[in-house]
Amino acid sequence: MKFEITILGCGSALPVVHRNPTAQLISVENNNYLIDCGEGTQLALRENSAKLQNLSVIFISHLHGDHYLGLMGLLSSMSLLGRQKEVTVVGPPELEEVIRLQMKVSKSYLNYELIFKPTSADDLNLVHEDKKVFVYSFPLKHRVPCTGYKIVEKQRMANIIKSKIDFFKIPVKEIKNIKKGADFITPAGKIIANNRLVKPAPMPRSYAFCSDTIFEPKIVEYIKGVDLLYHEATFLEELRNRAEVTFHSTAKDAATIAKEAQVKRLLLGHYSARYTEIEAFRTEAETIFSPVELAEDNKVFHIESTRQG
Amino acid sequence: MKFEITILGCGSALPVVHRNPTAQLISVENNNYLIDCGEGTQLALRENSAKLQNLSVIFISHLHGDHYLGLMGLLSSMSLLGRQKEVTVVGPPELEEVIRLQMKVSKSYLNYELIFKPTSADDLNLVHEDKKVFVYSFPLKHRVPCTGYKIVEKQRMANIIKSKIDFFKIPVKEIKNIKKGADFITPAGKIIANNRLVKPAPMPRSYAFCSDTIFEPKIVEYIKGVDLLYHEATFLEELRNRAEVTFHSTAKDAATIAKEAQVKRLLLGHYSARYTEIEAFRTEAETIFSPVELAEDNKVFHIESTRQG
Repeated sequence: MKFEITILGCGSALPVVHRNPTAQLISVENNNYLIDCGEGTQLALRENSAKLQNLSVIFISHLHGDHYLGLMGLLSSMSLLGRQKEVTVVGPPELEEVIRLQMKVSKSYLNYELIFKPTSADDLNLVHEDKKVFVYSFPLKHRVPCTGYKIVEKQRMANIIKSKIDFFKIPVKEIKNIKKGADFITPAGKIIANNRLVKPAPMPRSYAFCSDTIFEPKIVEYIKGVDLLYHEATFLEELRNRAEVTFHSTAKDAATIAKEAQVKRLLLGHYSARYTEIEAFRTEAETIFSPVELAEDNKVFHIESTRQG
Repeated sequence: MKFEITILGCGSALPVVHRNPTAQLISVENNNYLIDCGEGTQLALRENSAKLQNLSVIFISHLHGDHYLGLMGLLSSMSLLGRQKEVTVVGPPELEEVIRLQMKVSKSYLNYELIFKPTSADDLNLVHEDKKVFVYSFPLKHRVPCTGYKIVEKQRMANIIKSKIDFFKIPVKEIKNIKKGADFITPAGKIIANNRLVKPAPMPRSYAFCSDTIFEPKIVEYIKGVDLLYHEATFLEELRNRAEVTFHSTAKDAATIAKEAQVKRLLLGHYSARYTEIEAFRTEAETIFSPVELAEDNKVFHIESTRQG
């Protein structure tokens, strides 16, 4: 069962060649979500052989151009390519006005229904749920209202061990309950403990996305213990002043949040265009927290399943 | 003296890899103008080593996304890169509202003054003038209000032949008038004809840009005799019905306009994404008019000077 993050853009406000503005494709089994959609995202999706039509929900963190200017083009292309299935866009309330105005001036319509769900940058909010995941928004601290997103896989049922069904002659109607944790009681009244009958379900996996934000300890409670934390690191410590003025973080800030939140892995990105080499971001962050991964365009990060117990 | 057109994007509504949506950089000596600005134009400019800060005026033909969605990102990047010199944007009146709204929601400001000049799709209008060129907008016929643009070089003065200055002992104060066409009268009263003193000035060069439009014979009067005509050719004749329904042209339509307008060369572009090979556009157009050039991303087309007379 796949849970992977494809980096479509790891740059910041000023795009540079080979570093698109922010966009990430999150694939959980066959469900595909997009977080942020900087200029050029539709092409980046194609270069990664991602089918635009498989996207179900698009989450926008905030209305700085490098996080959403690719949205109109993507929505338009999905329509031109014949999409009929609805698309949900989750983002700041003003985004709806921006979309509607641009649709109006182009006298265009979309072949599919566009569902807009406004975010609120006040607290943790459930903004999406489907068969595979819950998605929550939570407040970041930036120059404009900005939310992070946390994608949490739903708890799956345990896998019943097939040979046990035959051995204990378990009737079909009992199987669902056993998968949910029930013991099996034989016709003779003997109790077979659940843990003899099933392989435990994998632990629900989780991913949190924090961009853009100044160092903000309040984030910790929202992202506690996630398997993978993406946290922006626009600057290195040498430019701490610049980070504070622009409401961005340093690699050390990101690592401090990761450590406090006891996440499993930290992924950095949103590097300022001034940095051509990014290895220093890892070096700086690893003085605080490990392991640290570095986002690069077209790189894919997997979150592996682990069994419970 | 340079007059060249760099194709930054030759595609149409659906961007494909190696074919960006419409944008062209027009360089007349050291003056740089942009016509249309589809998504990704700022990166295309950089890939062509064009300095964003050298752009003076941006002309937008109409408000379909593939012609303007790269504008906000470009304006933002010019500011982030420290530009202070004003930028003029010429385009449909509603574009101003789109820009202002996106500036508002991003709580951003530009370091430079943005001057907006609305176009009117009713007739030929002078929309820009500087030391080198006049730029006119003129109506095209599309699904939304849409204008073409014509860039006409200003008439330069003739070049006085240096050896004649010495030979006839021409005083400095006479030189400007001679460049403008005056004869020279020697202190002894002898008339030296102007054409013995100067090399004629080069003919003013001109470029017309027509995208997007259905076949529209009225265009002919606006673009009569230009040195290079860019005319959209979204389809081949085999899809004439599709061209008519979508208010686009075929290669043959474009060639018919070029022939009627007696232009010197025709440049085709805005190919539908369904065409991977474009040579057939030239073949079809050349049954009507020749020579025909094919726009391709990053290709540069030069307009050479010719002397008068």
